[in-house]
Amino acid sequence: MPADPIALLGEHPRQEDDVLERIVTIVGRHAIPKGERHIGDDAAVLAPFVGEALVSTDVAVLGVHLDASLFPLEDLGFKAVASAVSDLAAMGARARAAVIAVCAPAGTDLEELHRGIADAAAMTNCPIVGGDLANAQDVSVAVTVLGECPGRGAVLRSGAKAGDIVLVTGPLGRSSAGLRRRRAGAALDDELVVAHRRPWPRLAEGVAARNAGVHAMMDLSDGLGLDLHRMCDASDVGFELDDVPVAKGATSEEAISGGEDYELLMVTDDPDRLRLIFLDRGLRAPLSIGTIVHDPLRRTLRGEVFERRGFQHLL
Amino acid sequence: MPADPIALLGEHPRQEDDVLERIVTIVGRHAIPKGERHIGDDAAVLAPFVGEALVSTDVAVLGVHLDASLFPLEDLGFKAVASAVSDLAAMGARARAAVIAVCAPAGTDLEELHRGIADAAAMTNCPIVGGDLANAQDVSVAVTVLGECPGRGAVLRSGAKAGDIVLVTGPLGRSSAGLRRRRAGAALDDELVVAHRRPWPRLAEGVAARNAGVHAMMDLSDGLGLDLHRMCDASDVGFELDDVPVAKGATSEEAISGGEDYELLMVTDDPDRLRLIFLDRGLRAPLSIGTIVHDPLRRTLRGEVFERRGFQHLL
Repeated sequence: MPADPIALLGEHPRQEDDVLERIVTIVGRHAIPKGERHIGDDAAVLAPFVGEALVSTDVAVLGVHLDASLFPLEDLGFKAVASAVSDLAAMGARARAAVIAVCAPAGTDLEELHRGIADAAAMTNCPIVGGDLANAQDVSVAVTVLGECPGRGAVLRSGAKAGDIVLVTGPLGRSSAGLRRRRAGAALDDELVVAHRRPWPRLAEGVAARNAGVHAMMDLSDGLGLDLHRMCDASDVGFELDDVPVAKGATSEEAISGGEDYELLMVTDDPDRLRLIFLDRGLRAPLSIGTIVHDPLRRTLRGEVFERRGFQHLL
Repeated sequence: MPADPIALLGEHPRQEDDVLERIVTIVGRHAIPKGERHIGDDAAVLAPFVGEALVSTDVAVLGVHLDASLFPLEDLGFKAVASAVSDLAAMGARARAAVIAVCAPAGTDLEELHRGIADAAAMTNCPIVGGDLANAQDVSVAVTVLGECPGRGAVLRSGAKAGDIVLVTGPLGRSSAGLRRRRAGAALDDELVVAHRRPWPRLAEGVAARNAGVHAMMDLSDGLGLDLHRMCDASDVGFELDDVPVAKGATSEEAISGGEDYELLMVTDDPDRLRLIFLDRGLRAPLSIGTIVHDPLRRTLRGEVFERRGFQHLL
């Protein structure tokens, strides 16, 4: 959609096309499967999906989702893509493709931003097949990901049942701890800072959990203290947590209300089978943290009320 | 992706969820097909696509793509969705679903914005199946649309051949003329102003053109003066235009370099068949405007050089 349909560029009629061309060389390095058409037409053309099609969108804004004084611009692109792909992992889906809409003021290093986007796309095997660019005051990256669920269908949040065991794919709080450490002066390559800058969507874990038949699943993007409540709201159940596994270097508070860990939260009536399937695929065994109960109002950690807490935007 | 993973909302922990709930009642009025899951999970779940899957993304920024002093905020939402859906029309696809990522400062009337989004989604039969919201200085709407191409595959820009006839689905310049009239004080319900505020994606025309076997197609979003060049660049051909059909009330310049008309540009070696198929489906007969030629450097209108002109962002 053009900004002003009667504006003319006069002597520089190909300016946007030139920028696009440089960006395409950064994000378009993947092999294009036969019969597909990615960047360069009105829409990208993808070979038929197998089974259900999954779609999710996520937007990241510089200065809101990333502090530009602490982190390089490429981290905004990386985190935006990783966060969106994590939503596919949360359904047990396989990533098929992503498209990106970037807003930025003139003078923004769009190549650096797109290097971060391309790195996350390569890491998650989720090719960037299209995009859009616009002028704005903010730098923002909106990422939409497409995935497929062959065989057994996508895992929703709403399937948790009383008696199910609640598990997570790993200890929590690493991302928040990394942000705290960076604020205190830690280097960009500090292990926890990297956990914050380069989140890893648990795609393999999500597929394994779907194949194991978990009843409900989601990713921990806003923190266990919000996301577990959301799952139990969707399933109309409560929970009794025994424990929250705290990652090395993180605080208990960071493990509960810190977001962006992107570990998966799963509930199942057969946790032994889930563990076996994970181990069989070379994945770390998931950690049991509690039990689902009938009463949607009962939500406890070691017998105490477990409050809803974590990040939400003020709109 | 949370803005600050360790921020806590304290007394207002459900603020974002509340806003989302109000928005969902606006954009989620469509019937949800059996087996699908739309807003409310990590990702939307769609029933299997038939044939190729198409995806395109488009972002619109208030103050860049829409002048807030001339138009209501809902127009930004409407135009963002219509513009994205038009990219599906341009491939000959059927619209299946859209997701939206909205950025806005606190205090923005998000309900008005989403009413425009919902209107365009209803008009194009393209349900909103998911979204994201973030705080930012700008108001922006990133729309990603998904479509399918059963049977004969999607129509690309790159198939134009020497000797093909160039056609458009209607006279051009209405949107630019409407913007000019609004700037001069015309009412919001003036016919041309409405053409600017409420663009109509040519979905039925796109499917008809695909079924008729057109060689190349795209939508006129940035104006014939840019888009025809882009198609001929992709096809490595030139063109000789006889005429540019000017819409009633528009100027010749608006017809050539005005964008946002979203008429389709098509080339075919069988224009009679194309016209018959359009008429048979109750669609307006397309208008012939010229011929494709071998020499990619030959690009003329009535024998004069036809310059590249239209809107591009300065990045």
